Amino acid sequence: MYEVEVKVRADHAAVREQLDAQNATPVDHVTQIDTYYSAPHRDFAETDEALRIREETPRESNSFTEVTYKGPLADAKSKTRREIETVVECADDMGAILEALDFEPAAEVRKERERFALDGYTVTLDSVEGLGEFVEVETEAEDIDPAREGAFDVLRSLGLDPDDQIQTSYLGLLLASDE
Amino acid sequence: MYEVEVKVRADHAAVREQLDAQNATPVDHVTQIDTYYSAPHRDFAETDEALRIREETPRESNSFTEVTYKGPLADAKSKTRREIETVVECADDMGAILEALDFEPAAEVRKERERFALDGYTVTLDSVEGLGEFVEVETEAEDIDPAREGAFDVLRSLGLDPDDQIQTSYLGLLLASDE
Repeated sequence: MYEVEVKVRADHAAVREQLDAQNATPVDHVTQIDTYYSAPHRDFAETDEALRIREETPRESNSFTEVTYKGPLADAKSKTRREIETVVECADDMGAILEALDFEPAAEVRKERERFALDGYTVTLDSVEGLGEFVEVETEAEDIDPAREGAFDVLRSLGLDPDDQIQTSYLGLLLASDE
Repeated sequence: MYEVEVKVRADHAAVREQLDAQNATPVDHVTQIDTYYSAPHRDFAETDEALRIREETPRESNSFTEVTYKGPLADAKSKTRREIETVVECADDMGAILEALDFEPAAEVRKERERFALDGYTVTLDSVEGLGEFVEVETEAEDIDPAREGAFDVLRSLGLDPDDQIQTSYLGLLLASDE
């Protein structure tokens, strides 16, 4: 199973009108504060790994914290990564443990994330601090090509252009904007 | 805040009689399986630190998992360390994250732990696989000296001798017994 995901930069107002017109189903609306850590013994930018603490606050329920390791791209075409994640009770304590081990907070990504279900895809409206508004269309599939074509169709139905696809992560975009 | 802790080797039978005579309050009775990790970038045996995943199964409630960092000894006269700890949802995922970062499981400590409250201290009866029976007296305090003297008083009241104090961790004792 692959996660097929297409992301473009787009103002949300027009996209919301299209989601409404197509009766897309609201799924959730959360705030995510992600802290990415650097490692003392290797350069994650070079190894293409990431270590993240995410504090997620849903509008409708209680906050929780996850710690996540993302491995390097296993296959460039499918954007497949190994991902290991577990919920932790306390973001501050987890951060303090990492810092005691000389992992350092290197970057923070803050965003509002609103998800909708549409035609078997998840449409995500992200408002990222310092970067602006983005729309992601994603699904899980065994066959990548038809899933990607379907994601492109959903994008077009929302008035967006698949050729505007951005493959860089928000973290990568933020780090690039600092340079 | 420091964890001030004094530990001696002692048969539990006589100590239980003293706890009973002093109306110590039973707190809990748990099984703990601790996995200690080595670090890729420094030798915890040299730096006197520890990184641990603990799976605790109380007699009276559900199992849970904690990840803990212990700093070097802050006080030569007791087992006082900086300790940072948080509950995590999944021991296997937390272990997999550590291993992806090249921390390796180095040793396991299994024990039965029975805790009592007495005069503001916690008295712990530990039965450690491969090592035998121990009694610990501990508290949390800002000031180390009076807390340690109080712990010595509690030990004496249980018929034990503070001079028998063992400053080596169970992990250290197990590793030493392997040599």
